[in-house]
Amino acid sequence: MWMDTKAAMEGASRSRASLSRRVLNGLLLCTGDMEHLDKYMQDKLFVLQLAVWGLRGVTRVILANNPLSGALILAALYWASPWQGLLGTLGVLASTFTAVIIGQDSAEVSGGLHGFNGMLVSLLMGVFSSAGDWYWWLLLPVCLGSAACVFLFSGLSSVLDRWDLPVSVYPFNIIIVLYLLCTGQDNPYFPHHPATLPGTLEPNSTGLIVGEVMRGISLGVGQIFACGALGPSLLILGAVLLYSPLLAVHALLGSAVGTLAGLSMAVRHDSLYSGLSGFNGALGCMAVGGLFFTFSWRTHLFAIASAFLSAYADIALTNLLGTVGLPACSWAATLIVTLMLLQTSSLAAYRIPTGQVMAPEHNLHSRSQWEAGNTAERESTDV
Amino acid sequence: MWMDTKAAMEGASRSRASLSRRVLNGLLLCTGDMEHLDKYMQDKLFVLQLAVWGLRGVTRVILANNPLSGALILAALYWASPWQGLLGTLGVLASTFTAVIIGQDSAEVSGGLHGFNGMLVSLLMGVFSSAGDWYWWLLLPVCLGSAACVFLFSGLSSVLDRWDLPVSVYPFNIIIVLYLLCTGQDNPYFPHHPATLPGTLEPNSTGLIVGEVMRGISLGVGQIFACGALGPSLLILGAVLLYSPLLAVHALLGSAVGTLAGLSMAVRHDSLYSGLSGFNGALGCMAVGGLFFTFSWRTHLFAIASAFLSAYADIALTNLLGTVGLPACSWAATLIVTLMLLQTSSLAAYRIPTGQVMAPEHNLHSRSQWEAGNTAERESTDV
Amino acid sequence: MWMDTKAAMEGASRSRASLSRRVLNGLLLCTGDMEHLDKYMQDKLFVLQLAVWGLRGVTRVILANNPLSGALILAALYWASPWQGLLGTLGVLASTFTAVIIGQDSAEVSGGLHGFNGMLVSLLMGVFSSAGDWYWWLLLPVCLGSAACVFLFSGLSSVLDRWDLPVSVYPFNIIIVLYLLCTGQDNPYFPHHPATLPGTLEPNSTGLIVGEVMRGISLGVGQIFACGALGPSLLILGAVLLYSPLLAVHALLGSAVGTLAGLSMAVRHDSLYSGLSGFNGALGCMAVGGLFFTFSWRTHLFAIASAFLSAYADIALTNLLGTVGLPACSWAATLIVTLMLLQTSSLAAYRIPTGQVMAPEHNLHSRSQWEAGNTAERESTDV
Repeated sequence: MWMDTKAAMEGASRSRASLSRRVLNGLLLCTGDMEHLDKYMQDKLFVLQLAVWGLRGVTRVILANNPLSGALILAALYWASPWQGLLGTLGVLASTFTAVIIGQDSAEVSGGLHGFNGMLVSLLMGVFSSAGDWYWWLLLPVCLGSAACVFLFSGLSSVLDRWDLPVSVYPFNIIIVLYLLCTGQDNPYFPHHPATLPGTLEPNSTGLIVGEVMRGISLGVGQIFACGALGPSLLILGAVLLYSPLLAVHALLGSAVGTLAGLSMAVRHDSLYSGLSGFNGALGCMAVGGLFFTFSWRTHLFAIASAFLSAYADIALTNLLGTVGLPACSWAATLIVTLMLLQTSSLAAYRIPTGQVMAPEHNLHSRSQWEAGNTAERESTDV
Repeated sequence: MWMDTKAAMEGASRSRASLSRRVLNGLLLCTGDMEHLDKYMQDKLFVLQLAVWGLRGVTRVILANNPLSGALILAALYWASPWQGLLGTLGVLASTFTAVIIGQDSAEVSGGLHGFNGMLVSLLMGVFSSAGDWYWWLLLPVCLGSAACVFLFSGLSSVLDRWDLPVSVYPFNIIIVLYLLCTGQDNPYFPHHPATLPGTLEPNSTGLIVGEVMRGISLGVGQIFACGALGPSLLILGAVLLYSPLLAVHALLGSAVGTLAGLSMAVRHDSLYSGLSGFNGALGCMAVGGLFFTFSWRTHLFAIASAFLSAYADIALTNLLGTVGLPACSWAATLIVTLMLLQTSSLAAYRIPTGQVMAPEHNLHSRSQWEAGNTAERESTDV
Repeated sequence: MWMDTKAAMEGASRSRASLSRRVLNGLLLCTGDMEHLDKYMQDKLFVLQLAVWGLRGVTRVILANNPLSGALILAALYWASPWQGLLGTLGVLASTFTAVIIGQDSAEVSGGLHGFNGMLVSLLMGVFSSAGDWYWWLLLPVCLGSAACVFLFSGLSSVLDRWDLPVSVYPFNIIIVLYLLCTGQDNPYFPHHPATLPGTLEPNSTGLIVGEVMRGISLGVGQIFACGALGPSLLILGAVLLYSPLLAVHALLGSAVGTLAGLSMAVRHDSLYSGLSGFNGALGCMAVGGLFFTFSWRTHLFAIASAFLSAYADIALTNLLGTVGLPACSWAATLIVTLMLLQTSSLAAYRIPTGQVMAPEHNLHSRSQWEAGNTAERESTDV
């Protein structure tokens, strides 16, 4: 009887364990790069495939690559503002579709590499437009701008490939600057806000509110998608967490570093509270800490250095471009990450070839496996 | 008798046909790249050779390469303004001569590649000078600026060769911007007009005149040589037609696209009427439609896309550089053509290696020959 | 007796000759690149090694590489202003130390290649600071800016290596521009002077004083280290003379050419008198005349052309960057020297591979040896 109970209990705990293992496995299937999905999607409808490519594109903005995270992020954008959500969806679809039409490499298209620049262009066009929400004429530049990103991506990749550098968000940064310059502030068809609002130069009169600064650090993650609301920002952070916890930690860390850099340069409090000081730091920190380099304590320190450099460069570029009424977008982080990928110092040893970059945890795993293999081999040859 | 008459008529028609064929052959000898002239010129006087190199250089500005077209264009410039004609002649000679002295590759020199940047620099120096015509001191910067173009051409070609890119008009764009920055507006020796005239920012008060817009489209071709008169512009278009009808069609098409882009962004009417809105579009369209890519319907569509991108980029750069009083010159078209040459998409299949670029008709012919050869070969192996 | 006297005299003159030869040899050991010192220092204390690396770094600013010259230059800087001397010392040590920590190539570190950019950044931070001397908070950006130079050096070298180009002072120019942009004029922690002082645009009312211009030419050499006093400038020139007389001659020549270019463009007299017009010309002239190219009459002419180009480009960039309150630093000379190194013309035949560049006299010697060897070989094969 006792034996039976014990056996039953063992059986129950075993089945519980197997259930929880199954749940865990199911969860694990949804994290990381979800490569298994690609095989499953191969013979599906084109519309479904386009949706998956688009969702991958959405996450590429925040250096992730996971369709479920993409769905979460899109949900966050629609939550923050349905109009912005619509623009983002249109942008990612327009540029992915253009890439299909002009015959870009299909592996790049299905990896979402031709979607994220178009999405960012569309979101920023919406944010800077002073014509208000649901101004339907805006869809014209949104579609054209997103399509133009594909041309820039293709052209820049030919140049950057020589140094095995990713194109990252250069096309977005170029196209949005050209669009804002093209339309100008008083354009009768596509008016937009200037980047620096009136009263920028007046000094900070009131004291700093610590709670607001903390909130700003979380908002820094959302500002990567030009989203300034707390709830959606946390949801975006959750989407990153789903893809890779390491990346999420670095996102918050980078945003904090960016805020610190902003404090040391006495930037306006608005900029700290809204998360605009943090997002370049976050991007710079995420790219170096785990994504393009295998994670280690050394890489971690370089990631913090990268976050500081990105944040200071962002302040400098904001001041420079502000003189002609332009925003600095993510120029700073993009340039600094490119610089970090070009390093010849001890950092180069941790570099993962651009074509093999996956989720940080996966990178770490494949490296440790490879090193274990090396050690085993060495031991066997020692004997 | 009837037979005789018929025979006589046949003989007459044959001789007429042979005459017209001879005339046609003579005309055909004057079109395209006129390579046969190079052999003929080999043992002629240096001064004559320099003249031919210079005339080839003149046409290089408008992406052609034909000494007769060059003579026509020079005539058009002298017609528009003798002073500008003189400056252009001096510029092309000064830079070609500098290239000979500092020992540039002789094939490049005889192809006119070292003349066109110098010519453009000289013409623009003349246009922007506010000291009036026949201000002889201007010849000093004209000669020095033209000579400096050779250094830039040589240096940039080392960099761009890695991607098989042509240097095109980068040296001109750099030198003219540096010259205008160097002298400034109130220079006592070399005063010049600011790029944006006073009253730029006042809105268009009157309606658009369609006839003027049509005229502006034709002027767009002349504005490539900074020439704003209708007659000379049409003569320049004729010179392009002599080199290659395809190129001439794309020039007009590009200019029209540029004007359309200008309308969509509500640029000043002056800019539409003077052809300044069109010339970057024209250059972008000509380069892609037939010159650097084999002509086909696909390339034609890409040429239109290139014209739109060039035109919008030109508006953006004009607004940016206007804030410091500088003109955008042909930066937009030059950058967009470089981008198009770097494409990895289906456009890359039509790319002609930079060293083998000739008149569009010739490119088309050599490709169809090559393809016919391939087909014949395939057929013969099939049997 | 007479014989004895003669023998004694001969002996005396022989011993005098041997003494003077020994002195000369001792002096010669102190000139040029002093490679023998490296062997001697190999097993010394790290602090001593760091000092030598730092001193080499100090001279790298002025395109030399000699620890004794470095000591002289440091002395000159302390003489001109102890605070600036301290900042310079700190900068060179901070960046060299950073390079050691992040694991840069040890040959580069011991050659002083990671010191000179940091030193320049520190000196310029000190010069532009409006908080006065001995403002200790400035040491924070000085250390961080110097450290950041190492990252830029490493990243840029990966790119420029493809064309065998030296990184030269690009990192300094980038970091100082970013720092000035970052802090802005009214920064509460790190205030700085604007680059263009009030009253820049008022015309030169008084006549030119020739003596002052002559003084300005000598100051041009000191301005490479942002030092505007005559005595220290002459000491710095002496330090260059110790490294290589050819380089010193080209420094003065280039400074004179720069002043001439300034006169032709009617720049403010202040700028001529203070040596600011000359230092870009000096750098451009030194780099081409003997350092990166074997010295010859042809190279000498190219060096003068390079000096003119650098000087004019400097005026243009000063006018451009002045609109946003930034200095042009040594952007002009750096860009023009890069352009000269990329030339494909007859200048390319004199190019010394970047890794083998040493003192001009040494370059000349090794080339003539190599040519003599070639001639001897040819003669022997002729027989």
